[in-house]
Amino acid sequence: MSIRVGIFGYGNLGRGIESAIRQNDDMELVAFFTRRDPSTLITKTSGVPVYSANDIEKYKNDIDVLILCGGSATDLPVQTPALAQHFCVVDSFDTHARIPEHLASVDAAARKGEKTALISCGWDPGMFSLNRLYAGAILPDGRDYTFWGRGVSQGHSDAIRRIAGVVDARQYTIPVESALEAVRAGKNPELTTREKHTRECFVVAEEGADLDRIEREIKEMPNYFADYDTTVHFISMEELKRDHSGIPHGGSVIRSGKTGIDGENSHVIEYSLKLDSNPEFTASVIVAYARAVVRLYREGNYGCKTVLDVPPVYLSQKSRDELVKTLL
Amino acid sequence: MSIRVGIFGYGNLGRGIESAIRQNDDMELVAFFTRRDPSTLITKTSGVPVYSANDIEKYKNDIDVLILCGGSATDLPVQTPALAQHFCVVDSFDTHARIPEHLASVDAAARKGEKTALISCGWDPGMFSLNRLYAGAILPDGRDYTFWGRGVSQGHSDAIRRIAGVVDARQYTIPVESALEAVRAGKNPELTTREKHTRECFVVAEEGADLDRIEREIKEMPNYFADYDTTVHFISMEELKRDHSGIPHGGSVIRSGKTGIDGENSHVIEYSLKLDSNPEFTASVIVAYARAVVRLYREGNYGCKTVLDVPPVYLSQKSRDELVKTLL
Repeated sequence: MSIRVGIFGYGNLGRGIESAIRQNDDMELVAFFTRRDPSTLITKTSGVPVYSANDIEKYKNDIDVLILCGGSATDLPVQTPALAQHFCVVDSFDTHARIPEHLASVDAAARKGEKTALISCGWDPGMFSLNRLYAGAILPDGRDYTFWGRGVSQGHSDAIRRIAGVVDARQYTIPVESALEAVRAGKNPELTTREKHTRECFVVAEEGADLDRIEREIKEMPNYFADYDTTVHFISMEELKRDHSGIPHGGSVIRSGKTGIDGENSHVIEYSLKLDSNPEFTASVIVAYARAVVRLYREGNYGCKTVLDVPPVYLSQKSRDELVKTLL
Repeated sequence: MSIRVGIFGYGNLGRGIESAIRQNDDMELVAFFTRRDPSTLITKTSGVPVYSANDIEKYKNDIDVLILCGGSATDLPVQTPALAQHFCVVDSFDTHARIPEHLASVDAAARKGEKTALISCGWDPGMFSLNRLYAGAILPDGRDYTFWGRGVSQGHSDAIRRIAGVVDARQYTIPVESALEAVRAGKNPELTTREKHTRECFVVAEEGADLDRIEREIKEMPNYFADYDTTVHFISMEELKRDHSGIPHGGSVIRSGKTGIDGENSHVIEYSLKLDSNPEFTASVIVAYARAVVRLYREGNYGCKTVLDVPPVYLSQKSRDELVKTLL
């Protein structure tokens, strides 16, 4: 019995889900839902209907799992609890500080509707969280480091675009190589924000704009740039489109720790990602967890889960026997 | 309520378990069991009794989880099923081809005795298996590579020691750097055995032994060395003791795969380990899973599990709420 998936929201993440579903034979994309006028949505999958978000409850019995592709700032805090009562859902809520609160409200809704939900799925939160948990449980006497990049930060790119005189911008977060090396060597360094990452900005300015002022405003922007070594390059719109249209990202979770009667032996565990497309990889993680959500639901395991709760075998299309035989 | 742990077998792994337990506040080492004369066993933990393996069933009610530290060739296939009926157990059975059979026999015993067991724990099988599962579920259109080393292979070192004229030996398995680089770059190369790893041997020979013959016998040994580029260094016993007394190991599980409507984006997931002490790291993984086994048992979840089955939150000493708040 194939898993019938609905996609709610059709931005970068929704498109990533659309293509990820094609790579999983046990899944079938059955509907898109949008808050726009459905007739205006051009998807890449012909034959799959686009419905208005307002009508979604009509399709309760046609969908095994609904993947929510809205933003964490305003969409998901409302949508996920509202929909978790009627559907099994997965979201990628990534406002770290508000996860416990979001978990509680989605859990209440899912239990009320006897559904299974999973929040904060993707790679951070998501696979990186999972690796922090595993590494910390294995090496209790140790220390965690998370490095992000080289990759595009959407939030920082947006912040630059709000500066007067800026037409478009792309910001890359870059881990400091010497810091990464010290951590990988098990040296457990103390690292400030500035010592861990640098920020590189490619900016298209309006003709005649004061480039010095723009550069200064970027570099002095509190929270976003002031605590980092930031470089700014002014480029043309053509160059931006040619060289910076991708959405690559990645990073590493590294834990180093000691074992032995006197802590005489050091160990380094590293989980790292190099991603050509941040939203497509995030979507690929979400689709694997969507499968797990449906399995948990079919077992009557209701409520809101996270990646930390899910037994790994539930993620794979293969049977447990086959996984034990081929992977263990 | 702290977890009462017993150690069965006191070789390198048993000593690793002994020190790992000290790093986990919720665990208490309550007994060692040995097939030797208990009075001859000198442990590093004073005050913890050493009992004969023959008397173990007397201590059924004093131990929450028993960690089996015997070998996979002859000890564990017999010991784990025999003990799983009376104790919650964890072992590190690592004969990959025989895992399904071992799982079945331990599962039958554990279910009969209403106990929980976990087999094939450590890093490979273990954390590497888990990472093959996660990466494969996330990137179904991709390819896995496992590299081992640089590290000491006990089996290969033993094979060299069986050659006439050899007093002692240490063998290192070394991944081929160019192969690793091609895989990390997402090139999905086809690699033969010889192209993935080399083998480096440090050999102490008897005085007057025919070194050319020893070197030839090593390099031509089927299964162990014939398929690899092998280098042999003859050294003194002093050098062996000074430079090669550690048991380092490590390696990487790498999966690269494609996403997108036309497979246009590539991604690389890598999990890597750099370990000063193979047995101590293996022990650290086992101790985390021993905690999980006790939790599963207390919930009435009996039978034989593997690392692929265990929800990650069960591994940590911290509560789920705290993990969600601090790691997700």
